[in-house]
Amino acid sequence: MRALTDPYRLTIVPRNGGRRRGASGRRSWSLSFVDAASAIAAAEPPSIAGLIQLARRDMAGVDELIRDRMQSPVPVIPALADHLIGSSGKRLRPLLTIAAARLCGAQGDACLKLAAAVEFIHTATLLHDDVVDSSELRRGRVAAHLIWGAPSSVLVGDFLFARAFELMVEAGSMAALEILARASRVIAEGEVLQLTRAHDLDLTQEIYLRIIQAKTAELFAAAAEAGAVVAGASPARARALRRFGQDAGLAFQLADDVLDYSGTSDALGKNPGDDYREGKVTLPLVFVMARTGPAEAEFWRRTVDRREQTEADFQRTRELMRATGALQSTLDLASGYAAGAKAALADFPGASPWRPAMEDLADFAVSRRA
Amino acid sequence: MRALTDPYRLTIVPRNGGRRRGASGRRSWSLSFVDAASAIAAAEPPSIAGLIQLARRDMAGVDELIRDRMQSPVPVIPALADHLIGSSGKRLRPLLTIAAARLCGAQGDACLKLAAAVEFIHTATLLHDDVVDSSELRRGRVAAHLIWGAPSSVLVGDFLFARAFELMVEAGSMAALEILARASRVIAEGEVLQLTRAHDLDLTQEIYLRIIQAKTAELFAAAAEAGAVVAGASPARARALRRFGQDAGLAFQLADDVLDYSGTSDALGKNPGDDYREGKVTLPLVFVMARTGPAEAEFWRRTVDRREQTEADFQRTRELMRATGALQSTLDLASGYAAGAKAALADFPGASPWRPAMEDLADFAVSRRA
Repeated sequence: MRALTDPYRLTIVPRNGGRRRGASGRRSWSLSFVDAASAIAAAEPPSIAGLIQLARRDMAGVDELIRDRMQSPVPVIPALADHLIGSSGKRLRPLLTIAAARLCGAQGDACLKLAAAVEFIHTATLLHDDVVDSSELRRGRVAAHLIWGAPSSVLVGDFLFARAFELMVEAGSMAALEILARASRVIAEGEVLQLTRAHDLDLTQEIYLRIIQAKTAELFAAAAEAGAVVAGASPARARALRRFGQDAGLAFQLADDVLDYSGTSDALGKNPGDDYREGKVTLPLVFVMARTGPAEAEFWRRTVDRREQTEADFQRTRELMRATGALQSTLDLASGYAAGAKAALADFPGASPWRPAMEDLADFAVSRRA
Repeated sequence: MRALTDPYRLTIVPRNGGRRRGASGRRSWSLSFVDAASAIAAAEPPSIAGLIQLARRDMAGVDELIRDRMQSPVPVIPALADHLIGSSGKRLRPLLTIAAARLCGAQGDACLKLAAAVEFIHTATLLHDDVVDSSELRRGRVAAHLIWGAPSSVLVGDFLFARAFELMVEAGSMAALEILARASRVIAEGEVLQLTRAHDLDLTQEIYLRIIQAKTAELFAAAAEAGAVVAGASPARARALRRFGQDAGLAFQLADDVLDYSGTSDALGKNPGDDYREGKVTLPLVFVMARTGPAEAEFWRRTVDRREQTEADFQRTRELMRATGALQSTLDLASGYAAGAKAALADFPGASPWRPAMEDLADFAVSRRA
């Protein structure tokens, strides 16, 4: 495991330790190599602690809305919803809505309602995903469909999805509604595309990126864009924040794909190797299959296509990924997207504490351990 | 079968044959008993042919929107959606939106978009329902999940649900959006309530009506109310049309419950006895269980609760329903709701051809054979 984790840690290129805040409160790059080197050595991995601190009051409001709107006179609904919502989710997507809105000068609490709506859309998607994939664990807990049954998971997903739209109506922005309705549709398209193509040994990097663009990055993009729009931001700024969300989302998903081969179940809250066991082709697998060539073609046909696997096959796959640099290449791509996300913020005022906090989020998407 | 169909036909009380249009084009009640009696004897069952004719041009536009918006670059989506949407659905709910909007003087085509959205919400619900209930037939075709798999049905349902909200955004009425978002949530609550209570031998009429109010009548109510609202109707008129939709929806569902015991698979496009085989308690079963008392308690425990059934058990249940008047009582209740629906139209101008056409829809909800 260690060997797989090492290259992973090396990818933390634009880390907090490499910069420091100047007296003005704006960030400046350190020019001292010694400084930088010692900072890197001592640094914590990139963290969103600063963002969480900045958004603390807003996110308390979002949590209250979430708790309130998952209630229903039908008792199964809050019980099942709480199982997922009350667990260790990172709330990255609603954080993104809040950060984008506040960066654009939002004053009221309409962005809190949109943020709660975004989390409900995400939760509904997870519930349906776990049914679709027959997943056993989610966020460190037994998947809801194994406790309440797949029918309840499907229907409570529908409930949360509808609640999301009720919250958007309350927020009162038709433009934000349009963005999130479109995102919900694109996510469903991405999920179906994944369902029909993800077990395909010939899956290309291009199609894989199209899938995760739709099923993951679109909601990050919409979460940020909706926050900008509800704050009354200019179209250019809304587009920039959409770009930020999209690239951060791609970075997040690619890191997720790597963690499924490099992570531990304790940290992940789900079993590593889930994708592999399901025969789900993600980018590390696209890379390792291309790089091992005909020599291993039968191995992939047996273990991924026919899903005839042992634990040793998973370990061998991880070893091949390490040897061919498949995980590293995936993380390099993720780092590139994180850099793209940060570049999208270039025209926002550096004086706003929200801008560096969002930059941290982009770095965290790649460097996280879970 | 004949014996069960007979009492059913007797409930067609407020039939078209009892009225006729005066020279003014307004309807007048026939005062001639002989006229009325011969008309009843000769009459076709209540039909929505007049409504369909009135709404022909609008519904062609709705169909075009539906065809257009079920498209997707992911080929499974239009294929699966078309399987259900292209089949013999009656399009009652979008018809209701169009009729309510035009009755309230709607001029533009925003109501077409809402009508298409209503049909998409309904279709999404059917897709998820059939997965939840493991149904085998729908609208005369093999259920979609048996062809494309339950995961695809769940995800294409999500796609259609999201498309519905995109259409509502295009229609541009936040008030209509609020009504249909709320309805979508209430439907999901009704489905979960049914899931948790529908196999309960102690289910009461009260709770059963609460279930169908949510899972069926709410969408009829919202379809009509949204049509009124997008037409700029007064709150009183929007409330009246909501009431119309709600009562027509209750009548429709109760008639549906009866058809599951009295219908034929050719007419229904699905197997009669589905509810019984699934152990799903509907109102005819609530009535027959109450009326047969302790003598049959073990029969119901075995066939409904434990679902240990033969075809003879289904026939015996139909016989008990006939003998105890359980089907007739259900239809009487349905007729009462249909009358309530028509009463809700009392303050609308009788000169509008849409009013009698909607009255026909209420009657048709009860009297239909499929």
